[in-house]
Amino acid sequence: MPPRSPLAPETEPSLPPIPGVRLAARACGVRYQGRTDVCLMEFTPGTTIAGVLTRSLTASAPVDWCRQALKGGRARAILVNSGNANAFTGRAGEASVRRCAAAAAAALGCAGGEVFLASTGVIGEPLAEERITAGLPDLTAALAEDGWAAAAAAIMTTDTFPKLATRQARIGGVTVQINGIAKGSGMIAPDMATMLAFVATDAKLPAPVLRTLLREASDRSFNCITVDGDTSTSDTLLLAATGTAPAHPRIARADDPKLKDFRAKLQDLLIDLACQVARDGEGARKFITLDVTGAASDAAARRIALAVANSPLVKTAIAGEDANWGRIVMAVGKAGEKADRDRLKIAIGGVKVAARGQRVPDYDETPIAAHMKGSEIAIAVDVGVGKGRARVWTCDLTHGYIDINADYRS
Amino acid sequence: MPPRSPLAPETEPSLPPIPGVRLAARACGVRYQGRTDVCLMEFTPGTTIAGVLTRSLTASAPVDWCRQALKGGRARAILVNSGNANAFTGRAGEASVRRCAAAAAAALGCAGGEVFLASTGVIGEPLAEERITAGLPDLTAALAEDGWAAAAAAIMTTDTFPKLATRQARIGGVTVQINGIAKGSGMIAPDMATMLAFVATDAKLPAPVLRTLLREASDRSFNCITVDGDTSTSDTLLLAATGTAPAHPRIARADDPKLKDFRAKLQDLLIDLACQVARDGEGARKFITLDVTGAASDAAARRIALAVANSPLVKTAIAGEDANWGRIVMAVGKAGEKADRDRLKIAIGGVKVAARGQRVPDYDETPIAAHMKGSEIAIAVDVGVGKGRARVWTCDLTHGYIDINADYRS
Repeated sequence: MPPRSPLAPETEPSLPPIPGVRLAARACGVRYQGRTDVCLMEFTPGTTIAGVLTRSLTASAPVDWCRQALKGGRARAILVNSGNANAFTGRAGEASVRRCAAAAAAALGCAGGEVFLASTGVIGEPLAEERITAGLPDLTAALAEDGWAAAAAAIMTTDTFPKLATRQARIGGVTVQINGIAKGSGMIAPDMATMLAFVATDAKLPAPVLRTLLREASDRSFNCITVDGDTSTSDTLLLAATGTAPAHPRIARADDPKLKDFRAKLQDLLIDLACQVARDGEGARKFITLDVTGAASDAAARRIALAVANSPLVKTAIAGEDANWGRIVMAVGKAGEKADRDRLKIAIGGVKVAARGQRVPDYDETPIAAHMKGSEIAIAVDVGVGKGRARVWTCDLTHGYIDINADYRS
Repeated sequence: MPPRSPLAPETEPSLPPIPGVRLAARACGVRYQGRTDVCLMEFTPGTTIAGVLTRSLTASAPVDWCRQALKGGRARAILVNSGNANAFTGRAGEASVRRCAAAAAAALGCAGGEVFLASTGVIGEPLAEERITAGLPDLTAALAEDGWAAAAAAIMTTDTFPKLATRQARIGGVTVQINGIAKGSGMIAPDMATMLAFVATDAKLPAPVLRTLLREASDRSFNCITVDGDTSTSDTLLLAATGTAPAHPRIARADDPKLKDFRAKLQDLLIDLACQVARDGEGARKFITLDVTGAASDAAARRIALAVANSPLVKTAIAGEDANWGRIVMAVGKAGEKADRDRLKIAIGGVKVAARGQRVPDYDETPIAAHMKGSEIAIAVDVGVGKGRARVWTCDLTHGYIDINADYRS
């Protein structure tokens, strides 16, 4: 077990219960020994759900299952295992998924299509799904409203800390709760950000409304983080709404102005979880916030920001506490988006280092060198052609990443 | 000075003279101390030239200069320095380039537009070009036909060995010579492959013919290697033809069948140089040849191959001698090109590991594990949708890459 990331939050938030959501975790020995590795989330009848799934063309069997099940828009359970991704496991993998869903549906007395599945871990090895289904009676018996922390721990793989977040939002004067858990540490890149995240609210929102809200918020959060530019076969972000909060005004459309606060808080919560994933990037010692402005469009800004955030040369320079901004210039240049070399501006830690296509005349590296020694690095790039902007988050590339990934499987 | 890459060729080829080409190298102290860092290549009057330059939008001042000069199609000299890329140096950088070209033109008695320039090294620092121009009298005096090895050594930055290659080709029964040198070790990715390469032949070929031949050959060589997916601001590949070989049939068009052998040998030489660059990838311990077949087109195959070759997770697994083919599946999935997960085939070291969307039934890791322990790794992926194919070359991602890049500048 690697030590907790130095970038981890100092304390884990305590998540309040959400009526209608119960959780349990259990050590089923899917792959790991001596730790929990399966979690079950149960939702009250009538719960709606939306999801965002990996765009990988080699998506896992559970992702394929969720893509189908999401069409129904109803959820009674999410069953997750760590240790094995059940990806590239062919027909055996599809059969495993069907058996898991059927077993959970039987245990909870719901339809198979209301059970959502996610698996994370090694790709290409058959899933010993009988170990999961054998654990279902105990999982079901242990379901409790205060199981959030246990669930967050059970879904970890190379994560060094569990990732939890909670927010309150108001819908037409009524306070609703949003809780979320996530896992992710490597194989992190849009789209989407190579991880699992499960979010629940007690608001009462139809599935089409949830879909729109989730798509918007994930584009500004999970789709704006990267650790290594590698996209997982298993990315799954699910948002369930139980409708168990005190009655709030009925919401029928995603553009209802009464959703303003909920929309903001949901995005805030997803950014919180996404940044926790970047802070737990494999081997990470520094957390990097990268702002790109002045691009031809927001999408162009995001592509430029990701080119910088994914550049091994930028990430190793930051690991070495070297303000090697020339590599930022290089990464902007390779992004393939419109940029004006002779109007490019770069600031590190709020101090301008380059402008008008060259180093600033009175360049003094002292404050920048001091900033680079910290664990929170801020880089701002203006590419000088328009009004597009984006913010992405990433981490440095260190020996730790190599250590973890050169023998993760064995 | 890092030790010579374990993947370096056992011996360096000895390059025969090419009449009409003279070379010299000198320690000008541009940045490095105690080694040569500037080389001058001189060509006989009438020499034609073609080039392929970086597509970076933050290209260096010398790249901008070469782009202009290539329009003339004539070359009398190439002046190269290592240690400073003269990139992102604004108007001062442009002025440096003009002064260097003017000084070389004066020293050799030619036009400024016949002088080609290349710089490699740190980005964003002003070039002390007076150190280069001060060395020109000595460089000019030292020009010699046997200067190839010295030139190859002078252009190195983080390279651990000089890169040279030579071939003979026949054009209509006449033997011509092709010599090339290259540098490159990090910041290596298409397009184009982040390095400098200078190739000369004594064939007599018009500049438009050279352009076509060079574009074709670079697409199969330098544009098919990657070390870290980072694209340099300075990539420059130049091919000069002196016309000093014994008279061969006149060539007016690139599709002249008499060019068949020359075309093949030029491509072979560029692949040789490009693979030397990948073999000298920063920190590399393993050289990887990756074949993708069954793609929708050759271009799609190349994109899939590069997605695998650039995946940090694939590269670290190989560094760890772990046949973690699940990460290859992941990288194919993220490439965004058509692939049929359920027809995907993967072989490592010639042994099939996956087919029909899952691990082969009688999977035995023993021969694959043995292959992974070697320094030459072969991976073949068939994506099962068409006839497109590509071959790319890369290296593993090791602690050495981090060591080199976490404090290259300081």
